[in-house]
Amino acid sequence: MTTLNIRALTFDIFGTVVDWRSTIMEEGARLGKRKNLQVDWGLFADHWRAEYGPSMDRVRQNELGWTKLDDLHKQSLYKLLHDFGIIGLSDDEIEDFNKVWHRLHPWPDAVQGIARLRERYIVATLSNGNFAMLVNIAKTVGIVWDCILSAELAHCYKPDARVYRMAADLLSLPPSQILMVAAHPSDLKAAARVGFRTAYIPRPQEHGPDHKEDAVDRGKFDMVAADFNDLAAQLDA
Amino acid sequence: MTTLNIRALTFDIFGTVVDWRSTIMEEGARLGKRKNLQVDWGLFADHWRAEYGPSMDRVRQNELGWTKLDDLHKQSLYKLLHDFGIIGLSDDEIEDFNKVWHRLHPWPDAVQGIARLRERYIVATLSNGNFAMLVNIAKTVGIVWDCILSAELAHCYKPDARVYRMAADLLSLPPSQILMVAAHPSDLKAAARVGFRTAYIPRPQEHGPDHKEDAVDRGKFDMVAADFNDLAAQLDA
Repeated sequence: MTTLNIRALTFDIFGTVVDWRSTIMEEGARLGKRKNLQVDWGLFADHWRAEYGPSMDRVRQNELGWTKLDDLHKQSLYKLLHDFGIIGLSDDEIEDFNKVWHRLHPWPDAVQGIARLRERYIVATLSNGNFAMLVNIAKTVGIVWDCILSAELAHCYKPDARVYRMAADLLSLPPSQILMVAAHPSDLKAAARVGFRTAYIPRPQEHGPDHKEDAVDRGKFDMVAADFNDLAAQLDA
Repeated sequence: MTTLNIRALTFDIFGTVVDWRSTIMEEGARLGKRKNLQVDWGLFADHWRAEYGPSMDRVRQNELGWTKLDDLHKQSLYKLLHDFGIIGLSDDEIEDFNKVWHRLHPWPDAVQGIARLRERYIVATLSNGNFAMLVNIAKTVGIVWDCILSAELAHCYKPDARVYRMAADLLSLPPSQILMVAAHPSDLKAAARVGFRTAYIPRPQEHGPDHKEDAVDRGKFDMVAADFNDLAAQLDA
């Protein structure tokens, strides 16, 4: 039970809803087998994700004009193919591997938890993934959203306040009636600054089994839940 | 069977997916009974809809800045309350009646037909309704869209080419892989001008049983279907 007056939930996607690392490892291993590549795909996934922030920084700092995440991922992928010494992939194979981000697997509780929450609330993505990427992830995974909200609609990347404001404006709701759901404190902090309510869902496996998370002060969030089913229970959904 | 290479379908909503006239008549009659009003609600619905084009023209001609359809509807509603001599409604009652556009009933084939099409294609709205209105219609009706696309995202109204271009850009698809589905030739013509494929779905009951439609040259469209189930059959969905 919560005393918050919530009408809509907006979900971060990468790491919060889907497990990017294990999906990239799995598809990488398949590609490696087919093309006879010797690559540590866990390390490859970590490096690809490590390029994420810096690649968006180029847009944030106006070094690049607005660029979809698909295209930032592809630029990072070219760099990684070089760094890991991977050769022999065709353009189509590179393009297809770049689209692994459209096929990410959900955390085990995601599909059911979001379906439960959707019975009672508007559920939406609010991700730096570009619009088509988010549509395709949902379709691949079988998640039903009431709408797709993407940083692409604001032409800037989270944690820019304009992304959260765009979401509230499109939903025609005051920010205080929207709950931002994320595994990343920085995302929640930026949402809270605009007036959103916040729910922290720790995903300790996001960066793999050996990764040690920084300590998180859970008292800073309106809600903390172990997963989406727990969140649904707390929100009476 | 069609030889078109379609990946996504974008649907006009008012008149194509939902039956605005009968819903307004029904809710109007209920309101009238409660407030003891003598109103021809069919005529009221027709007048409200007749204000639609002129109200958007004020935005198209920059007489008004960008204004959500909810707010245009409300301005039209005030005019109609005056014209029909309706008094005694509270602000909350007026606000709630304005939201009838969020609760429109679907045509009988809509929910099933769209569900069938969604098995094989991306299905999206592409309407002048504002974003939250489209989310709420879908939720009320039980239609599942892969994403909500609204003129609001382009800050201009159909048939402005920018609305269709925005849709193709967000879906990351060439216009030739998108099928615009509408009951209105003008909408299809504008979509075709941007490169979309077109499917005409006649909805002869849109303006009520006594309305006589202008003759439509069906040869101008890529597809013509009797309803969404027929469209699904023609598209092998």
